[in-house]
Amino acid sequence: MLYITGIGRTKFGALPQTLQELAYEAMYNAVMDSKLSINDIDAIFVSNFLGGPLNGQLHFNSIIASLLPGINIPIVRIETACASSSIALKQALYSLSQFENVMVLGVEKMTSKTILGTTEAIAMAADRCLDQQNGLIFPAAYALIAQQYMLKYGINHDILEQVSFINHKNSRLNPLAHFFYKDVTIETIRKSPIIATPLNLFDCSPISDGAAAIIVSKEKKSDRDIEVLSSQYVTDAISITQREDLTSFKATRLAAKKAYSEAGLKPDDIDILEVHDCFTISELIALEDLGFCKPGESSELVINGDILKDGRIPVNMDGGLKANGHPIGATGLAQIYEIVVQLRGEAGIRQIKNANIGMAQNIGGIGGTAAITILGRS
Amino acid sequence: MLYITGIGRTKFGALPQTLQELAYEAMYNAVMDSKLSINDIDAIFVSNFLGGPLNGQLHFNSIIASLLPGINIPIVRIETACASSSIALKQALYSLSQFENVMVLGVEKMTSKTILGTTEAIAMAADRCLDQQNGLIFPAAYALIAQQYMLKYGINHDILEQVSFINHKNSRLNPLAHFFYKDVTIETIRKSPIIATPLNLFDCSPISDGAAAIIVSKEKKSDRDIEVLSSQYVTDAISITQREDLTSFKATRLAAKKAYSEAGLKPDDIDILEVHDCFTISELIALEDLGFCKPGESSELVINGDILKDGRIPVNMDGGLKANGHPIGATGLAQIYEIVVQLRGEAGIRQIKNANIGMAQNIGGIGGTAAITILGRS
Repeated sequence: MLYITGIGRTKFGALPQTLQELAYEAMYNAVMDSKLSINDIDAIFVSNFLGGPLNGQLHFNSIIASLLPGINIPIVRIETACASSSIALKQALYSLSQFENVMVLGVEKMTSKTILGTTEAIAMAADRCLDQQNGLIFPAAYALIAQQYMLKYGINHDILEQVSFINHKNSRLNPLAHFFYKDVTIETIRKSPIIATPLNLFDCSPISDGAAAIIVSKEKKSDRDIEVLSSQYVTDAISITQREDLTSFKATRLAAKKAYSEAGLKPDDIDILEVHDCFTISELIALEDLGFCKPGESSELVINGDILKDGRIPVNMDGGLKANGHPIGATGLAQIYEIVVQLRGEAGIRQIKNANIGMAQNIGGIGGTAAITILGRS
Repeated sequence: MLYITGIGRTKFGALPQTLQELAYEAMYNAVMDSKLSINDIDAIFVSNFLGGPLNGQLHFNSIIASLLPGINIPIVRIETACASSSIALKQALYSLSQFENVMVLGVEKMTSKTILGTTEAIAMAADRCLDQQNGLIFPAAYALIAQQYMLKYGINHDILEQVSFINHKNSRLNPLAHFFYKDVTIETIRKSPIIATPLNLFDCSPISDGAAAIIVSKEKKSDRDIEVLSSQYVTDAISITQREDLTSFKATRLAAKKAYSEAGLKPDDIDILEVHDCFTISELIALEDLGFCKPGESSELVINGDILKDGRIPVNMDGGLKANGHPIGATGLAQIYEIVVQLRGEAGIRQIKNANIGMAQNIGGIGGTAAITILGRS
């Protein structure tokens, strides 16, 4: 069994810190949260998506080495679009066949536009020839998905508004969330400008800066440690033009199947869930792909209050990508941070009851990559 | 013990193929070289450095999934500047605690300038604030290193010209090399234009397209399989301003020490060597950092013919980065490809005698990352 023995993150939002400062803060917090010192860390796995196109900075493993003078350990950078940090975690877990304690760091400085604009940079997660060059930026791609889903299952935009509303409401209990300070009403959501029909501004996750870090260890260090019950990822074709079905992500379904199997669990066993709501429609699809309801029935979970704090399966208690924020390279680790806080019983006013097993779903691009992590109380 | 059970590469050079076509060709060749089919591959580790800044394409793991329809396995992208592919190999080795056969792919399409110019893109491997923004592009950084080295050890540019000449001569025996077709004389080298004093054009490796792939397995499949005796990497501070000494790379020294220790070998045991000659000066420093001579004495290895095909320690028989080419994300795997071909005894007219153990040294940036791989006949 492997254990999460330390967690740390920064505030998410449009922040004054540099890429390096964000990275340092998250690593520092993770070490301080653990029973370890930085000298106990055998290797670091860094997740960063847009350091090149946005910050003019690649070779980020060596940047991290600069932040830790005299510590010449193996450090590597992983990039798999928005799923980068969950997949960095998996590489870290592989490495524990040889190490005792390793750190996983996710960081993104998205409000910097040193080289390119943000939309142009993010579009690099889609196929350049088939999608990008035809103008299929991400809000447009997810709008096509939302159109198909709404047509197929006969729902309207009201449900998406509810998803956005619930995530924003959750973020009001999370001081580190991008929109912690912001009261958002259904009225505000409904009246927000259209980005790509049917998606409006409040269907879209924000452009956030931020970092998160966790330490994983071969041995348990304290009663606050959380067990890694499963970590699985799979890939699928990158372009939306290569998919059989736009209303479900094959990569999520396959990764979830493997993860449930590895952990010996089923959806009913999950007490708390974090899903990748880069756009509101993505949350509905995730609930179905992960097996929490049948295809087309996730609206009912939303309407019935099942995904609320005291519901059957509380979802995105930190506010999700929508309201906690989406600093891309850090997003998967932020989901894991929230699950760990909840399973430890340290979530304060947003603590759910009976949190024994939690799951996080983190996807890259338009579902080209999907990573599932299942954690349990040790 | 782990084994390299298949290898494949493309021609290196300014090529007509796209990024995807290069990747596919190398993977295809590696599978065809092995006893396996693509369905036996459990996971893929992709190395690519400049897909974002040069090709407008990130999320490259999902691009690879598109090339292999119906194969939804874990695929991840690794980026650690010019050391990306050796470090992708190490991640693949970690994963063999859970898998049977995995593929490592390195690919770079550097002659494409979809987004940025090549020099600006490559500069992202250096610290943006401390190096890049002060104009310290890579030829300038290595020129400072060459100046220090020449001053400290009292050598002149003649030795660097010899290094370039030998690498170009070696490439004339390697049909897949970037400069296979090109006769290069000492006169040509000496008269080439200065890039950054004291380095001239022939001190610098070229801008190449290309790909290389290898398959690593938990079990031996044939007598052509090669054992992985060690794979180690370490990181150091990224900026040249943070180094104590410019005439030696601490990351190479530390990684080599770990690798020799893991393999239970010393420099005298190595029969064939590939070093990271991104600039000629880098080859001299590598020979010293790897322990093949004392600091300041590598010129003698060059003068005495020790690094030639029939010398004490044949170096860069494929032409090295200088003349085989330097498609950055593929470079480390191309080195390993050459070692494997030599250890198998399949190198044809460039085959060295008594090739039992080979070593490859692959660095990122100005020595911010260093990876050492030691291979042996099985």
